[in-house]
Amino acid sequence: MRQAGRYLPEYRALRAKVDFEALTRTPDLAAEVTLQPLRRFDLDAAILFSDIMTPIQGMGVDLAFEPGPVVREPIRTDKQIDALPALVPERDVPFVLETLRIVRANVPRGAPVIGFAGGPFTLMCYLVCGKPSKEFASARTFLYAQPEAAQRLLTHLADAMAAYLLAQAAAGAQALMLFESWAGLLAPNEFTQFALPAVRRTMAALRRAGVPLIYYVNQGSALMSAVADLDVDVIGVDWRSSLADVRRTLGAGKAVQGNLDPAALFSAPQDLKRHADAVIEAAGNAPGHIFNLGHGIWPETDPDAVARLVDYVHERR
Amino acid sequence: MRQAGRYLPEYRALRAKVDFEALTRTPDLAAEVTLQPLRRFDLDAAILFSDIMTPIQGMGVDLAFEPGPVVREPIRTDKQIDALPALVPERDVPFVLETLRIVRANVPRGAPVIGFAGGPFTLMCYLVCGKPSKEFASARTFLYAQPEAAQRLLTHLADAMAAYLLAQAAAGAQALMLFESWAGLLAPNEFTQFALPAVRRTMAALRRAGVPLIYYVNQGSALMSAVADLDVDVIGVDWRSSLADVRRTLGAGKAVQGNLDPAALFSAPQDLKRHADAVIEAAGNAPGHIFNLGHGIWPETDPDAVARLVDYVHERR
Repeated sequence: MRQAGRYLPEYRALRAKVDFEALTRTPDLAAEVTLQPLRRFDLDAAILFSDIMTPIQGMGVDLAFEPGPVVREPIRTDKQIDALPALVPERDVPFVLETLRIVRANVPRGAPVIGFAGGPFTLMCYLVCGKPSKEFASARTFLYAQPEAAQRLLTHLADAMAAYLLAQAAAGAQALMLFESWAGLLAPNEFTQFALPAVRRTMAALRRAGVPLIYYVNQGSALMSAVADLDVDVIGVDWRSSLADVRRTLGAGKAVQGNLDPAALFSAPQDLKRHADAVIEAAGNAPGHIFNLGHGIWPETDPDAVARLVDYVHERR
Repeated sequence: MRQAGRYLPEYRALRAKVDFEALTRTPDLAAEVTLQPLRRFDLDAAILFSDIMTPIQGMGVDLAFEPGPVVREPIRTDKQIDALPALVPERDVPFVLETLRIVRANVPRGAPVIGFAGGPFTLMCYLVCGKPSKEFASARTFLYAQPEAAQRLLTHLADAMAAYLLAQAAAGAQALMLFESWAGLLAPNEFTQFALPAVRRTMAALRRAGVPLIYYVNQGSALMSAVADLDVDVIGVDWRSSLADVRRTLGAGKAVQGNLDPAALFSAPQDLKRHADAVIEAAGNAPGHIFNLGHGIWPETDPDAVARLVDYVHERR
């Protein structure tokens, strides 16, 4: 999950001077924010600081961060879908690629750098609804009422995210992660019919980058059998899933990433260790486990709790 | 799920004259709203119209519906928990019991009447956070940071909901349903440690009512093995769960309730039948399936789509 953010005083100091969107569009600053957590904690990897809607904005869609992304004219008609241009990353989002180059040149301890994008279905939710909502009702009714239009939009987004992530790899990203933040809005049948073919399309294109591919499936405990045969190296899971059950369903072909509850960072120090132990034990060893939170870190989190967690996980390994 | 609501013109006509809270507190009107869907559709059961926070208000907690419940002074300290009184339903919420008596006397076709309450953990989320939020962060940090206080609050709520539902059964409810709307906020370990013992306590007390017990677990696909040995007759599941997987995990001892996606009601008529078929087939027959939506019906839903769905499910059975 995003490692940078409001829980860090050094991030808040920067944000007091520059707004969120400007941060994501200014390579020196975005690189600085990407590196902040690596300087403070003994982390094993860096992840690009950006927003999943940044490439959508690059495609010419009029949107604002308030602070969640708000699309001025929601996209729901065939005409609007046909009018969406392809994404040309070097032209449309050069600042993201420049950020990655700066991060690669400055990352402490030679830690690997992860590039990322939003999953096609997750991006579709924002485009169709216009603004974030609890149920994303318009996006879900769009799938049921206009299934062909939904599929065309998803295919377009799948190709755009493939181009975006291939460009990130070319700019230095050493692993690529796709965030399906809204997977949990879908029944398993609809996930398999709509979201999964789009991810498959993106991931198939990304194989030629020759780097590890990670698919994060938020609220995906009922979707693990659907993603078991997806050609990726790692499945990221949220805190609601049982990592032991996920392992059983995925089989030996995939590593897992996750899945400590961000709320566990508010435990007493001894309890935090116990919660970390539970994740490590549920994950087991083979074929690989990347310890991580199961969702984004909360702004109220004490950075010292994060430091204790990172050190404890290293100590146990 | 609640059958009444804003998708019905006859409900909107009533609400234009009376606010939500007054509706829930006026037995003639609450009974009228409970019966509205039974008059329009050929439904097999009625479910009490009320709010899960109504008994909490009855316990003297100062709250308002804006429209989600807002608790004026969130409950987070031992002192506040100790000060919570027991619920005495006949004294504190007599209007709910009177509503049930009116509904029983007037329900069309002698349809059975379901009483309901919120699950202790779900109620705790509202009490601790003060108002609904996407992540209910304060409630989750409360569990991790103050586990003993959380357990005491949950025990208190479990006893209150047991008293509440026993009184509903005495007033005529022929089945009792507990809604764990926020089960999906919890990792399986925390569900098992906090939410489940409280539900177990409520359900054990309810057995002496001698009526079927239903536990609805929203976002609970990772929690089915935890509830498999809970002493209830029916597990209700949301649309995100695979009903076939749920059946496998629960075994032969429990019926299931659910789980059509409310968004499916926006499909073309032939597609809606296909989505209903998928639910019925996933549920199989033994040991019982109550066809239902997997979550609350949306205000924008076309009542004619609901009528077509109800008739189609009857036709198939």
